[in-house]
Amino acid sequence: MEYIFSDRMKDMQGSAIREIFKAAADPQTISLAGGNPAPETFPNKELAGIAKRLLEEQPVLALQYGVTEGYPKLREAIRARLAEKEGIGTDADDLIVVSGGQQGIELTAKCLLNEGDTIIVEEPSFIGALNAFRSFGARLAGVPMQSDGMDMDALRRVIAGHKNVKAIYTIPTHQNPSGITMSAEKRRELYGIAKQAGIVILEDNPYGELTFHGEKLPTVKSLDDGSTVVYCGSFSKVLAPGLRVGFCIGPKEIIAKDIIAKQISDVHTPMLPQLLAYEYMTGFDMDANIRKSAALYAHKCDYMIECIERFFPAQVTHTTPNGGLFIWCDMGPGYDAMEVSRICAAEKVVFVPGNTFMVDMNAPCSAFRLNYSTMSDQKIKQGIRILGDTLKKIMGR
Amino acid sequence: MEYIFSDRMKDMQGSAIREIFKAAADPQTISLAGGNPAPETFPNKELAGIAKRLLEEQPVLALQYGVTEGYPKLREAIRARLAEKEGIGTDADDLIVVSGGQQGIELTAKCLLNEGDTIIVEEPSFIGALNAFRSFGARLAGVPMQSDGMDMDALRRVIAGHKNVKAIYTIPTHQNPSGITMSAEKRRELYGIAKQAGIVILEDNPYGELTFHGEKLPTVKSLDDGSTVVYCGSFSKVLAPGLRVGFCIGPKEIIAKDIIAKQISDVHTPMLPQLLAYEYMTGFDMDANIRKSAALYAHKCDYMIECIERFFPAQVTHTTPNGGLFIWCDMGPGYDAMEVSRICAAEKVVFVPGNTFMVDMNAPCSAFRLNYSTMSDQKIKQGIRILGDTLKKIMGR
Repeated sequence: MEYIFSDRMKDMQGSAIREIFKAAADPQTISLAGGNPAPETFPNKELAGIAKRLLEEQPVLALQYGVTEGYPKLREAIRARLAEKEGIGTDADDLIVVSGGQQGIELTAKCLLNEGDTIIVEEPSFIGALNAFRSFGARLAGVPMQSDGMDMDALRRVIAGHKNVKAIYTIPTHQNPSGITMSAEKRRELYGIAKQAGIVILEDNPYGELTFHGEKLPTVKSLDDGSTVVYCGSFSKVLAPGLRVGFCIGPKEIIAKDIIAKQISDVHTPMLPQLLAYEYMTGFDMDANIRKSAALYAHKCDYMIECIERFFPAQVTHTTPNGGLFIWCDMGPGYDAMEVSRICAAEKVVFVPGNTFMVDMNAPCSAFRLNYSTMSDQKIKQGIRILGDTLKKIMGR
Repeated sequence: MEYIFSDRMKDMQGSAIREIFKAAADPQTISLAGGNPAPETFPNKELAGIAKRLLEEQPVLALQYGVTEGYPKLREAIRARLAEKEGIGTDADDLIVVSGGQQGIELTAKCLLNEGDTIIVEEPSFIGALNAFRSFGARLAGVPMQSDGMDMDALRRVIAGHKNVKAIYTIPTHQNPSGITMSAEKRRELYGIAKQAGIVILEDNPYGELTFHGEKLPTVKSLDDGSTVVYCGSFSKVLAPGLRVGFCIGPKEIIAKDIIAKQISDVHTPMLPQLLAYEYMTGFDMDANIRKSAALYAHKCDYMIECIERFFPAQVTHTTPNGGLFIWCDMGPGYDAMEVSRICAAEKVVFVPGNTFMVDMNAPCSAFRLNYSTMSDQKIKQGIRILGDTLKKIMGR
């Protein structure tokens, strides 16, 4: 039998990143490709105690159907935390618990984007989000990244040049894949442009709490009067990704549609992961655990940059992130990172070539993404040295 | 700011059932509206032990990102169980773990249905599935239910009369909402019709293991050579719905698309619920727990039918299910169950009027669905008596 797939899905391919994950299953391989948090940051003993107690003492709560919008106490706790830590939330906003940040993006895309509508994205950007937009037949319009975030002049031109621009997708803080953080000035500028144009901002902030040094910048959502920004957050990078617990806070009308879309998608996020997130965030020192994680990643990031500067050809540029999980490197015009990644894979070092994160994934791209969160210092050094040797061969020095 | 929602979602409303759930939150209310399994069937003590052990001893497995297609050992265990219990599975099939049966339906709909395509559904049918199809802009074509399942002549006429029929959605066993089971003859007939026409069958079987008496009938999927049937199953009614663990088995090409759609939707089903399902099904006597649940529901169903025959006007017909969670009642032409439901709600008895389960939800419907799985015998009697008194008033006897 020949299967006829829907237009929206027929050309969709699996994420290159997850395919590389599979290749990286070989324990000999040094993976600089993933985006996994370091497992030593998981508070598994505490979660074991919570899970046992809840399943023994509150079986109906933990195992029966729940409501689509999420466990009420968790919703309240997240709202309180967002208000305190980020200055987020107005009476015009509502909050839904979702199954990881990815689901918040996918549901909101389903509710907002008709086939042929335009969504503006940073270039490069997170492939999971780009694929969600593609899977509803939306057109992606890229805005180049600068060292302080989106190029605002390019953003204005893209808005002026496209019909039916429904949303702007941004990861303003410690962006995946670039590691870049948008400046406070540009955050205000972005908000003003979007609000004036009547375009929704979809702000994705999974890494904001993993800031290495200094004060966090205000989220775009903290500038919002409850009209313009849908903000997606997640417990994946601050508690544990296998729980698949995230949230969206945004204008009530949009969240009401997200709730309907979620009911249709999976009825509700599983109760036990929601309860673990709630009990851990309210009963334990989550902030201390986040500080510990950020310090670990700050060290690994510093060390990887040290290795890059030692082993890479001098003309390869790199970003210097102040948080998150990724460094973005660029060989400059004329080089193709896909070629480098193939050669390195044969030497058992994997990373993600930059074309993966672009609107046009088929065009050669001279940049690539490196992840430092899970490998030991020794493996980081070894991986960066092998990668550096390959770069020197290809770039001729 | 005025929000412009996508065409596919702009008219979607929340499930009337889940709205009634909220109304039923009043502990005084007798709810015959839900579809919840009885919480006394949840093996919570066993699950507490498993959860504690896994989180303590295998934190990376339980808390790190997993693969999109599902925990490999769980996929194997489900395939083995399906082969043994149902004769399901060929080399042409693959299996994906999903976040409850609902997600299997939604992902498959996303992959198969263009806006304007037709999907054939039993009428009445499960609102969660109907809404999933609607949310991708598909047209629903209803085939009436008879006491032994879909009207096959009507099915042939509907196929002949519609363009772009992409799939047939059926719940052949202990159907929600009707409680009807499709005969073995009709299962073979349905399979033959679909295979010949090159139409995918989407078989939803959350209640098959909850058969009260006698042998189970062969699933439609067990008749399949791996070409035609996507089969969705779930742990919601045989273990616990709050875990949100289900699965789809079907032709490899379709499951490959479902995996891509799931990666975009929520990356993977949370690990802890998958691990609980796996450890419980392989380490404990799940069959004994299912037999206990089926016996409980058989008693409650019998008792509700006894009450119906005692308290309802004689002209109200009812189905006599051999499994599952629901009885379907019909007042006959000229009556509107929505009116009855409103009157009863004021008397604190809630149930779901039949129009909810129809292709045209706005047309008056003389039928309604009753659930017997969670109320005590005393509440069942009290609820059916109040409902019977209302029916007598409206129907004039």
